[in-house]
Amino acid sequence: MVLTVMVPACHTQLKNGIGSSCMKVGILTGGGDCPGLNPVIRGVVRTITNAGGEMVGLLQGWRGAIQGITTPLTVENTDDIIWKGGTILGSSRTNPYKKPEDVQQLLETFKKLGLDALVAIGGDDTLGVANKLYRDYKLNTIGCPKTIDNDLSCTDVTFGFDTAINIVMEATDRLRTTAESHRRIVVIETMGRHAGWIALHSGIATAADYVLIPEVPVDVDHMCSVLKRRREEGKEYAIVVVSEGAVLSHEDGFVTQDAKIDDFGHVSLGGVGESVSKIIEHRLGVETRCVILGHVQRGGSPTAYDRVLGTRLGVGAGRLVLEKKFGRMVALQGTHIVDVALEDAVGKLKTVEMEYYKEAAEFFT
Amino acid sequence: MVLTVMVPACHTQLKNGIGSSCMKVGILTGGGDCPGLNPVIRGVVRTITNAGGEMVGLLQGWRGAIQGITTPLTVENTDDIIWKGGTILGSSRTNPYKKPEDVQQLLETFKKLGLDALVAIGGDDTLGVANKLYRDYKLNTIGCPKTIDNDLSCTDVTFGFDTAINIVMEATDRLRTTAESHRRIVVIETMGRHAGWIALHSGIATAADYVLIPEVPVDVDHMCSVLKRRREEGKEYAIVVVSEGAVLSHEDGFVTQDAKIDDFGHVSLGGVGESVSKIIEHRLGVETRCVILGHVQRGGSPTAYDRVLGTRLGVGAGRLVLEKKFGRMVALQGTHIVDVALEDAVGKLKTVEMEYYKEAAEFFT
Amino acid sequence: MVLTVMVPACHTQLKNGIGSSCMKVGILTGGGDCPGLNPVIRGVVRTITNAGGEMVGLLQGWRGAIQGITTPLTVENTDDIIWKGGTILGSSRTNPYKKPEDVQQLLETFKKLGLDALVAIGGDDTLGVANKLYRDYKLNTIGCPKTIDNDLSCTDVTFGFDTAINIVMEATDRLRTTAESHRRIVVIETMGRHAGWIALHSGIATAADYVLIPEVPVDVDHMCSVLKRRREEGKEYAIVVVSEGAVLSHEDGFVTQDAKIDDFGHVSLGGVGESVSKIIEHRLGVETRCVILGHVQRGGSPTAYDRVLGTRLGVGAGRLVLEKKFGRMVALQGTHIVDVALEDAVGKLKTVEMEYYKEAAEFFT
Amino acid sequence: MVLTVMVPACHTQLKNGIGSSCMKVGILTGGGDCPGLNPVIRGVVRTITNAGGEMVGLLQGWRGAIQGITTPLTVENTDDIIWKGGTILGSSRTNPYKKPEDVQQLLETFKKLGLDALVAIGGDDTLGVANKLYRDYKLNTIGCPKTIDNDLSCTDVTFGFDTAINIVMEATDRLRTTAESHRRIVVIETMGRHAGWIALHSGIATAADYVLIPEVPVDVDHMCSVLKRRREEGKEYAIVVVSEGAVLSHEDGFVTQDAKIDDFGHVSLGGVGESVSKIIEHRLGVETRCVILGHVQRGGSPTAYDRVLGTRLGVGAGRLVLEKKFGRMVALQGTHIVDVALEDAVGKLKTVEMEYYKEAAEFFT
Repeated sequence: MVLTVMVPACHTQLKNGIGSSCMKVGILTGGGDCPGLNPVIRGVVRTITNAGGEMVGLLQGWRGAIQGITTPLTVENTDDIIWKGGTILGSSRTNPYKKPEDVQQLLETFKKLGLDALVAIGGDDTLGVANKLYRDYKLNTIGCPKTIDNDLSCTDVTFGFDTAINIVMEATDRLRTTAESHRRIVVIETMGRHAGWIALHSGIATAADYVLIPEVPVDVDHMCSVLKRRREEGKEYAIVVVSEGAVLSHEDGFVTQDAKIDDFGHVSLGGVGESVSKIIEHRLGVETRCVILGHVQRGGSPTAYDRVLGTRLGVGAGRLVLEKKFGRMVALQGTHIVDVALEDAVGKLKTVEMEYYKEAAEFFT
Repeated sequence: MVLTVMVPACHTQLKNGIGSSCMKVGILTGGGDCPGLNPVIRGVVRTITNAGGEMVGLLQGWRGAIQGITTPLTVENTDDIIWKGGTILGSSRTNPYKKPEDVQQLLETFKKLGLDALVAIGGDDTLGVANKLYRDYKLNTIGCPKTIDNDLSCTDVTFGFDTAINIVMEATDRLRTTAESHRRIVVIETMGRHAGWIALHSGIATAADYVLIPEVPVDVDHMCSVLKRRREEGKEYAIVVVSEGAVLSHEDGFVTQDAKIDDFGHVSLGGVGESVSKIIEHRLGVETRCVILGHVQRGGSPTAYDRVLGTRLGVGAGRLVLEKKFGRMVALQGTHIVDVALEDAVGKLKTVEMEYYKEAAEFFT
Repeated sequence: MVLTVMVPACHTQLKNGIGSSCMKVGILTGGGDCPGLNPVIRGVVRTITNAGGEMVGLLQGWRGAIQGITTPLTVENTDDIIWKGGTILGSSRTNPYKKPEDVQQLLETFKKLGLDALVAIGGDDTLGVANKLYRDYKLNTIGCPKTIDNDLSCTDVTFGFDTAINIVMEATDRLRTTAESHRRIVVIETMGRHAGWIALHSGIATAADYVLIPEVPVDVDHMCSVLKRRREEGKEYAIVVVSEGAVLSHEDGFVTQDAKIDDFGHVSLGGVGESVSKIIEHRLGVETRCVILGHVQRGGSPTAYDRVLGTRLGVGAGRLVLEKKFGRMVALQGTHIVDVALEDAVGKLKTVEMEYYKEAAEFFT
Repeated sequence: MVLTVMVPACHTQLKNGIGSSCMKVGILTGGGDCPGLNPVIRGVVRTITNAGGEMVGLLQGWRGAIQGITTPLTVENTDDIIWKGGTILGSSRTNPYKKPEDVQQLLETFKKLGLDALVAIGGDDTLGVANKLYRDYKLNTIGCPKTIDNDLSCTDVTFGFDTAINIVMEATDRLRTTAESHRRIVVIETMGRHAGWIALHSGIATAADYVLIPEVPVDVDHMCSVLKRRREEGKEYAIVVVSEGAVLSHEDGFVTQDAKIDDFGHVSLGGVGESVSKIIEHRLGVETRCVILGHVQRGGSPTAYDRVLGTRLGVGAGRLVLEKKFGRMVALQGTHIVDVALEDAVGKLKTVEMEYYKEAAEFFT
């Protein structure tokens, strides 16, 4: 008698050496959107699907995971999303740990949907939730770091950051010609509430005459003396890049007071760009203009760098799922995609190192 | 006996049929800068130089004409400027008619420099001065219209405008993805204090859900009902484009008061974008963000359209000089470069026609 | 007894003053794609739908009209297409007049689908078919002109053209820096088989040192003498823009022979760019490179100009349908959208006028 | 008696801790140009000048170093070059080691100019010369790696590469819409004669359906089966990215034969893109187009990434000079600028690792 064993498709060995999978995997994007989210989604979907698994998109961040708002994700419906900014899954700042019943509902939804694993793409908040769900409930979570500000730990770079600095650069290249025509100083306020990566990189990229970041105490006297000297040497306009998180002391004068908190917990430290602009105009007697680039910095089609980084992180996150390495976060170190414990990645801010700042400061002396 | 008559180079007949010239021609750019000024300068310089004439750049608008601050302009030093934003001649809002002695000094400078003619590129103010100098003192002036707002009369389009609407469009294409990801309404405030051309064109180009311009009384109820209906039909984000000159009435609520006047006499009508944003958020209960693009709109490399238009106007202005048709302004009508009396062009605002607004309004109903 | 008369929605009077409509309107795009087709589609759909009508997309040009391959078009599914290059309806070079049975089948399909009118967006071929269907069978056709080459009659400009010249300009701005670094001459071959609009406009916009177009006999001696003189005057690189339709005579040497015809009847006149490049290198002894931009010129997101023009033409075509002005083509004249008889528009090439060429030629002398 | 000691400016201690310098430092750029060279030049000049040193630009690569063709470089004349593509110093493929007398003349020129050190920015050839001059003649050389192909050893990334992949990406995003409209396959041939970095990265960034690189033997059967399957699954167009160095075997048919060598020793392996295009069209019966992007890929304004990388490498090279660490090359490793022995860096090609290729290959299976 011949025994025929039916091997389901998802048990066959796959070319990528990781083996196949019948897993059903959820994915969500939390917090503020940024260019590169869709490439990550596409990368995860492709990797899981290639291995025989099934993907479910949870909409609007953790809200979708709690309430079970879902959409099927396939190779076909994620093929054409790599060049699209934002996230096709939508996002929110819902945090299930704010209400105990939300965590319970999330666990039930996870079970009801029959999910074997969950990939959470987001910033410190989102990854913190993924970490706690893994730690407290052994939920099979994988994290993927996302912040336009580039200030997450354990990864060299986050996607969206490269797009942001190119947007700031293009806007500043434009502002330069108008500044030059009118012999003005232009102050550009960029994103970066706790870390100066965007301001510093775009300051370098735009040949800025001065850059202010949160990590370095603002020295108004030094800034004004540098700007004055450049002008005396014959450069009749100037570009100053200010991180929104740069802190002026009240002795500097002209400090606006209206700090506010936006819906992603983003603290606006009160129009530091406008204040810096007024200080410069007052001290140097030179016409000065302030431009606040705002949300434009986080929108639109990702650069090649962010599409490649997002895709690689997505493939990496998919592989972590297939290898069942849960409670971990995918990351970029050097040129390699690696994985680190979520535990180690969350709760620490990656600020600009002084060594690196000094490289840039060659241009502000 | 043979008589040899030396014919100076500038008397030989030229291919373009206009004839040669020994003229010495001044050129200046006045008012706010905008992309396309350098192509005009290059066009004038090339045309005059080809005909055997000599060009002198007067720096910083009328200030250079009064004080005799000049730079030589040649085919060589203007060859590589077409892609550059702003103006290589610098600009200012100096108006000689504000002080009688300035007009006198200008006339003396004109004589001292040995100028035969002057090409003045600028907006209503600059062209008004050129017109008065021609009318009052028979100064050989030629005008070239410049306004980023596209609101000068007697010309179909002004250069800089196309670049501006492309900048607004690119920024809005970026804002769209972030608006969509968070199901927000985004209000974009554009330039256009007296005419809605920039807002209307960029509104059409970005598939905006509503556009507010100075020419059409703001109907807050209608705007909110359109936005509400679109949302009910399933489009969960929206784009609203607001001209800085759109006027809200105080009954609309949330109207900010801080009107101010900038250095080009540009009246900021008090943050209409912020006001509209707050009104929408309040009435619809939908998260709304305002982005004010500001000076970015007038900077940077001109589009192909503006480079071609600027160059053609420059060639046209140069020919008017060679033809000694003074007191006139070069203009675009249809596909042709024509000339009109400065007298007829100044002092009249070209606002958005209702017929044209109605075409756009198909999308706001 | 009360008599209630039900007035169907499509009979109510509309704000735009044209009146409502219960019309069912087909739309198709024929020939090579170009940026701006989707804005036209969106404009027609919105205008017809606003008036109470219904829209049907016929896929793949006349093929869809013959075989009845259709897709429903609504405000919702055409809202998000304005920034997309190409055509959501697909295209083909099917021409029903090539086979008598195809015309018959088209007429039957038209009847079977219950269409009241058909908007055909395309070039001379597509518009010719629309004209013949109207003339021969009183089919209610409306034409909308489309050619990237800008060589259709009765309209000042066609959409797609502005995008194309910006693409050529951006590529050339890039080529300039590499040409300059290596003191090379770069020859850029652009589209434009019968008319030199793309080459001439992008030549002006890029400050090209010479431009060759089909309308002006190539004078190799003059070109080389201009390039030689510019080099002697100190400009050590040069840019030459060549329309693919520029014709070299065999005496010029290096003329490649391999003319071919592509699927849209587009005759490649045999690598004129390569030939010009070799001639220059041979005569001047200067390293010369040729770049053929090809299909990149017709792809991608339309510029603001093309989005606005496409949208306005779409609204205009929709209104012609509602006004039942069939056998006509929508067009741009000056700043206005007008309509002309299809009969008058087809079969005539709009080439570069000599007056206009002379403006540009100031820079090639 | 009071003794006054005059301390020259260049002996004062500097803030950056490296100490001051009276050094006179030469700098040159060799080989093919690429975006990012000017930021490097600016970075070196600023760092050396800040320390009290003097900079001399050697024009046209090693030719300038041999013949003593120089230009002074200052903070002022290098301030405004960061956004410019190419190299303000010009370049050539002159190699002094090709003629013994050239090396001697170079050494004499070096002495005559009074140079204390030389920064050579270039590819394997240029760096090889710098290495030999250091090894054979103890010339104080510092190398800075440059290759658009990203295939130099000892550095994670080279500048110019990021700009190149963004250019390919933008062109491909354009080609996609026209491919989709006509249901075509488009083959894009990119640079990369020995390494597939550009093709692979731009292939990932554009969601290409297949990528061919020199490191992986071309499997025409596999490629065609993947393209066929995608089409059967409903994606009616496709994008194939081919590195110019990908090698087809003659059994694949349609292989063009015309290999040639350009002026930078760049071997064109004979139109592999055209061959692949013909093979696909023949095997699948689907209309296929080939686009060869060519020199556009190496021109124009650098991206933010390349401006920052170039600037950092420039500052790093300047510091190596000040620290007198000669015979070394500045490099990027992880997020840090480091230095390695020139000896170790030259002569080795950095090709695409298989591990990395497999990440991308998730999308070609």
